[in-house]
Amino acid sequence: MSHLKQQVGIKAAEFVKDGMIVGLGTGSTAYYFVEEIGRRIKEEGLSITGVTTSSATTAQAKTLGIPLKSIDEVEIVDLTVDGADEVDGHFNGIKGGGGALLMEKVVASNSKDCIWIIDESKLVEQLGAFKLPVEVVQYGAHNLFRQFEEKGYKPSFRMKDGELFVTDQVNYIIDLDLKVITDAEKLAEELDRTVGVVEHGLFISMISKVIVGRPEGPQIIEK
Amino acid sequence: MSHLKQQVGIKAAEFVKDGMIVGLGTGSTAYYFVEEIGRRIKEEGLSITGVTTSSATTAQAKTLGIPLKSIDEVEIVDLTVDGADEVDGHFNGIKGGGGALLMEKVVASNSKDCIWIIDESKLVEQLGAFKLPVEVVQYGAHNLFRQFEEKGYKPSFRMKDGELFVTDQVNYIIDLDLKVITDAEKLAEELDRTVGVVEHGLFISMISKVIVGRPEGPQIIEK
Repeated sequence: MSHLKQQVGIKAAEFVKDGMIVGLGTGSTAYYFVEEIGRRIKEEGLSITGVTTSSATTAQAKTLGIPLKSIDEVEIVDLTVDGADEVDGHFNGIKGGGGALLMEKVVASNSKDCIWIIDESKLVEQLGAFKLPVEVVQYGAHNLFRQFEEKGYKPSFRMKDGELFVTDQVNYIIDLDLKVITDAEKLAEELDRTVGVVEHGLFISMISKVIVGRPEGPQIIEK
Repeated sequence: MSHLKQQVGIKAAEFVKDGMIVGLGTGSTAYYFVEEIGRRIKEEGLSITGVTTSSATTAQAKTLGIPLKSIDEVEIVDLTVDGADEVDGHFNGIKGGGGALLMEKVVASNSKDCIWIIDESKLVEQLGAFKLPVEVVQYGAHNLFRQFEEKGYKPSFRMKDGELFVTDQVNYIIDLDLKVITDAEKLAEELDRTVGVVEHGLFISMISKVIVGRPEGPQIIEK
């Protein structure tokens, strides 16, 4: 699998041009994209500014010598390349398996263009087999959990080392085991409205291009 | 003005009964409600459990000896009494002048019943003269500010001691100077959808009763 991830990471880096402000995604596939950007800076003299989507990506980018700015220091991001946990045929997806959905969504919503890079196992008919991460305010999180239980959303708190996982923005994550999401837009609206929900992992109409890693080579799917 | 605030605070406390779990609001009017609850516990042996809506109210309640639980330790709050910055004829309102809108909304959304206590100056035909507070994630807050500017929402960051004000949940607050909100529900939906917005100060259909302080005595308005 990791060679497919590497392949799409390198392919996506071809869309990065000199002078761009580039959103650097988080996770095991975006990792290879960030590595390739680092390589191009070092070996080809590529000149870009990166905007990261997590503390993990910030750490990686720094070791590669990628110049960084905060999202608040740039007017707009030219291109963001990120992974995804599931993508359907409408270019909607689930993200947040890595726990960075909020910063990823903030960067994506400030980007002119977004590309997702995935291996072919992530392409699905219908979203929902992957647990939907919901980032929630700590205060009231256990009550929100009970609300989700009552709705039959089969929630579980994201854990790390036996403790509740805390995001870079100091919130908790509740994963919803929905199996099948029949109407992603409607569910997104419902979660947006829910008090205590900071963001959720449903990314609706935020991307225009997916690069899929396949044994026969990367496939670019455009909207 | 403060005697009107005290009057409605004391009036609201009459709705609190032994054994209740009571949401304790934040701000200059809710202050008097919390004081009265403290007095009733001490002088009348009232037995309740308080759930606070800010670190400030927690501090006040502790000095009064009010037994407290976190919102996550209770199934449901029986009654929440809180102030509001503006209330219209549809029982919709703006809250958050005190900077505690997120915790206030979490507690309100977990309450069987909510009462707002206000002086008569807060009753308005249409919401919006009071600046609408929006609690936003720190990451990307300046870009969100620019978005609000472009929409003509006249945003300003809430400040404290010359620094950006940080909420109890470690977010910023952007106040929108809208003058008139013609469709509060639509604006609430728009803000709910906006990436980076944690919560906003529009409270739609969350209360059933308002107690208004008037020179001739407190007036109870029910839905």
